[in-house]
Parts: sequence; C-alpha cells; structure tokens
Amino acid sequence: MKNRICSLFNIQYPIIQGGMIWCSSWRLASAVSNAGGLGLIGAGSMYPDVLKMHIQKCRQASPKPFGVNIPLLYPDLEDVMKVVVESGVKIVFTSAGNPAIWTPYLKENDIKVVHVIANTKFAQKAIDAGVDAIVAEGFEAGGHNGREETTTMCLLPMIRKVADIPLLAAGGIGSGAAMLACFALGAEGVQIGSLFAAAEESSAHEHFKQKIIHSSEGETMLRMKKLMPVRLLQNEFAQAVSEAESQGASAEELKVLLGRARAKKGMFEGDLSEGELEIGQVASQIKEIKSVSQIMKDLWREFEEAKEKIAGL
Amino acid sequence: MKNRICSLFNIQYPIIQGGMIWCSSWRLASAVSNAGGLGLIGAGSMYPDVLKMHIQKCRQASPKPFGVNIPLLYPDLEDVMKVVVESGVKIVFTSAGNPAIWTPYLKENDIKVVHVIANTKFAQKAIDAGVDAIVAEGFEAGGHNGREETTTMCLLPMIRKVADIPLLAAGGIGSGAAMLACFALGAEGVQIGSLFAAAEESSAHEHFKQKIIHSSEGETMLRMKKLMPVRLLQNEFAQAVSEAESQGASAEELKVLLGRARAKKGMFEGDLSEGELEIGQVASQIKEIKSVSQIMKDLWREFEEAKEKIAGL
Repeated sequence: MKNRICSLFNIQYPIIQGGMIWCSSWRLASAVSNAGGLGLIGAGSMYPDVLKMHIQKCRQASPKPFGVNIPLLYPDLEDVMKVVVESGVKIVFTSAGNPAIWTPYLKENDIKVVHVIANTKFAQKAIDAGVDAIVAEGFEAGGHNGREETTTMCLLPMIRKVADIPLLAAGGIGSGAAMLACFALGAEGVQIGSLFAAAEESSAHEHFKQKIIHSSEGETMLRMKKLMPVRLLQNEFAQAVSEAESQGASAEELKVLLGRARAKKGMFEGDLSEGELEIGQVASQIKEIKSVSQIMKDLWREFEEAKEKIAGL
Repeated sequence: MKNRICSLFNIQYPIIQGGMIWCSSWRLASAVSNAGGLGLIGAGSMYPDVLKMHIQKCRQASPKPFGVNIPLLYPDLEDVMKVVVESGVKIVFTSAGNPAIWTPYLKENDIKVVHVIANTKFAQKAIDAGVDAIVAEGFEAGGHNGREETTTMCLLPMIRKVADIPLLAAGGIGSGAAMLACFALGAEGVQIGSLFAAAEESSAHEHFKQKIIHSSEGETMLRMKKLMPVRLLQNEFAQAVSEAESQGASAEELKVLLGRARAKKGMFEGDLSEGELEIGQVASQIKEIKSVSQIMKDLWREFEEAKEKIAGL
C-alpha cells in the first residue's frame, strides 16, 4: 500500500503496533517492523537504561524502521528523551500528556513525532505543536483512555474534520475489517494494541495472554475514572475497583487501592488475581496466540476481503 | 440498493430511523419512509390510543412501509401489541426486553420482527425466538444501552459471527461514512437515531433540537448504570445524576432523583435544565436541523463518496 502513513514511516502496511507497557519489548517491535508494519517499543514500563538496551536489540533484530512510545505522564522523562535521541531513534509516539512540551525538542533532533489524542482539543494542540501525525484513540482502547469516552466510530470523523495531517485510528481494531471501517471514517492507518499484546512475541506474561484469549464480551470496563481512566480486564483487582467506585471511592482511595507496580504484577509477572490487566475491548475477539507475522498476514487479508465486499455493494 | 434489509422491508435504502421516545411520531416516520428509508413510530412514549392515532396518520401520510418500535420494558404491553396487530402494522422493532415473549405472537400475525440487542447472548436469544433481523446497538447510542458498554466497532463483528440473519448497526452513525464503516464491519443496514431526533419532522421540542446541534464533544455520558444505563446530554439534571453516582448513589436513590416523566419534560416539553435528554454520542457532529429528505440525501451521498474512496485505496 502507498499512502501518507506508509511514506511517513517508510513501511509497507499502514499498521502500527501500539507501544504498550509490559508488552512492547524489542522482540515484539522488531517482529512487527520485520513483517512490514511499524513496531513501537513501549518506554512506559522501562527505566532509561532498559529502554536503551531494547532500542539496541530492536535495531539488531530488524533493519526496518521502528519507533518508541513515550507516555508523558511517567517520571524520568528527560532521561528517556535523552536515550531516544542519543540512540538515534527516528520515530517517537507520545501519549498521555501535553504535546507542546517535548515535540519541538524531538523535531529539532530530526525525529518524527506522533501524538495520541482522544478529543478534538488535544488533536488541535498536537497539530499546533508540529507533530507529523496523530493517533485518534477511542473509548474501546486498552490502557489509559480519554475522559469524554468518545468511541472510535464517533471520534475519527471529528478528528478528520480538524486534522489535515496523517491520521491513525486506535481502539476497537481486532481485524482487517475493522481496519477498513477506520479508513471509511477517515483514518489512513491504524495503531493496534490488544492483538499484539497477545502475540507470541509480546513480552506479556503467558498467563495474561491466556486470560486475554479466554476473555468474554463485557469483561473489560473503563475504571479509575476519578484518577486516570483505564480499561481493565475483569479479575479480583478490577472487581475491588468496581466495588469501591460503585460506593463512591475518592481519587485518593483509588490511589491507595491501586498501590504500586500493579500493572507489572499483572501483565508482566502474570498475577491474574491481584495484578492490573490493561487490554482493549476487542480482547474477547482474540481467540488464539499467534505470531506477529501471522497477525499481519491475517489483518491484511481481512482488509482486502472487506475492501472487495464494499466494492461489490 | 438491493440487499437483504431492503428486500425484507421493501425499501429503497437500508436506513432505518430509530423509534425514539418523544421524537418518533407519525410525522417523522412517514417522512423517512417517503424518503426511501424505513420510518418507525416510537411506541415507548405513547398510550395505546395515541399509538393507534399515529399509525393511522402515518399510513395517511405515506404509502410506503413503516414500522413501530416497542420497548418491552414499558407498561400496557398487551394493549400496545393489540393496537399494532389490529392496525395492520407489518413491521415491529422490539427492544429492551426478552425477545422470546412477544416474537411468536407477532410472527403469527404476519408481522416482521426485529429485535435490538447489545451483546451476543441476546442476539442468540433473538435468533432463537425467530426474529427476521437484529439491530446491534453500540455503547455510543442514545437511550438505554447495554451494560457491557461494547461499542459499535467491537459489537458488530461479534454479532456478525453468530448471526446469519440480516443485521443492522446502531450507535455512532452520524454520516454516510460511518454507515459504510458499519457495512465493513458486517452490517447490512443501519438504524439511525440522533440525526433524526434533530430533524425538522421530529416531534422533539425545538429547545432540545437546538441543544443537540449546539452540543460539544464529551457532552453525552452513559449514566444511571445501577438502574438502567442511559446516555444523557449534559444539563442540570444530568449533572445531578453524575454527582449522585460519583458519591455512590444506590439504584433506589437514582430512582428518586429520576422521578417521573423526566424524558417527556426534557425531550418533548423542552425543559433543558430539569428534563432528561437522551441522545447519542454523535450529537456533537450534528450541526443543523435538516429535513428528513435532506438527511437521507446527505447520508446516501456520503455513503457513495466513502465507497468510492475505499475502492481507490
């Protein structure tokens, strides 16, 4: 395929693998890039020196372009940015923060910058900050989501209206058909998380992957709305959060309940009871753990099939 | 267009106007049917004799097929069903209840039955009950929504997988491009609410229509989750509900807060402060009050344009 997303990143398919905490290591990112998409290393769960190692290993594992996702809400940001620049990374996706702060610095260092947004206001902020592309992420996405709860179906047309720059869709994309739906809504590419979180090459714990592929409809819910909304897969911890919220728990009480390192405990260490399991609403559509190469092939085949079907309407 | 939805209802375009309380009178339904779609009278806000009058007037206003939407949670159901059968209505959409109870009766009376669902379990129940088609309604829809909060993007592929019968999409459809996206996801037609709620021919109060077209992103939220989830447009009443829920209000407390006839007060009588205003998340995409005929023309043009664009990918 040839479009602005493919040209911007010099990739074969306009498919970006989301830079997810505890899932998106060098192994996952390089596999996606090798398969013709754009792999992203998820810096959100890495200390600067760990990130540096992942960047080096990713480069060894793939000659293709790859990027780093940096959630702007984490600590050590200056060190992380320094690692990214000094390691010669050429693509950075930023999320969960103000795009105005780091975009100029990254651009000065010849890095392509993409910012993840969930509403028009932040899309405009990102454009004003000079980003090269934006990701519009809907309510159904895993991880931290927008407070407006705008779904991908509703979000994309609004963002397309204000954004002339390349636009990626995220949230709810579990197949090539959904990818095509996003194109119909104005996207030029997709950022996919959950499918890749459950991939063979994902660094998520095997227990978490198994939990994903056995999850059912309605098993993920947006929680922690008074703190920072996050989509959680049902387990004892999520249940405790639901009950606390149902009884009107304050942000402070939620913070105590969350404690520290819960995401690591759940997604990386495989504690399915007490860990925090972040995943998108498409989780219930994922039925097997596949290799990245297979996921990419399936996505593209489904995309082409859906295109054929639409052309025949 | 020729497809199973058009054949089932004998209509020109696979566009169904949702049977919304306080909006979907004979005037709206007949206008949609006259424009080549399928208009539905919303029985949910009508006493049986009022419904009977609307059916008669709709028939006088249009020679085309039309239907009636019956939410199965309202009282007087037996009387409503009797009116529908005796008035010779040939298409009934049921929602918010168990499809097994009334479907056989309606089918015996030579009525085509469509049931609105928000998850796979109820899709299966509807199919088992013998309905002719189902509407899969996503989280972004106005009115009463599913508890799983599954969005249209995630819901359609799952429902398509279990349903061989004709499938309509609802929730988040504010343009012909979104309609095409639903087709990519497996739908064969759409049920559109909000766009028609704000139409000239809608019986919604002018104040409510103005409020819709001036609403912003994030101004509708799913509320009353302990009672029966409903998507509310922001106003004093919705704010009071949000605050009560944030403090852990019980179902009983929400019931008291809701009181009686709030939807009528808001949507039909135009009390924008204290009334209940139900509308979909696409509300912020609606920028003007248009005639049904114009809405239908725009939808179809946008649908064709999106199809062209997709074909050129």
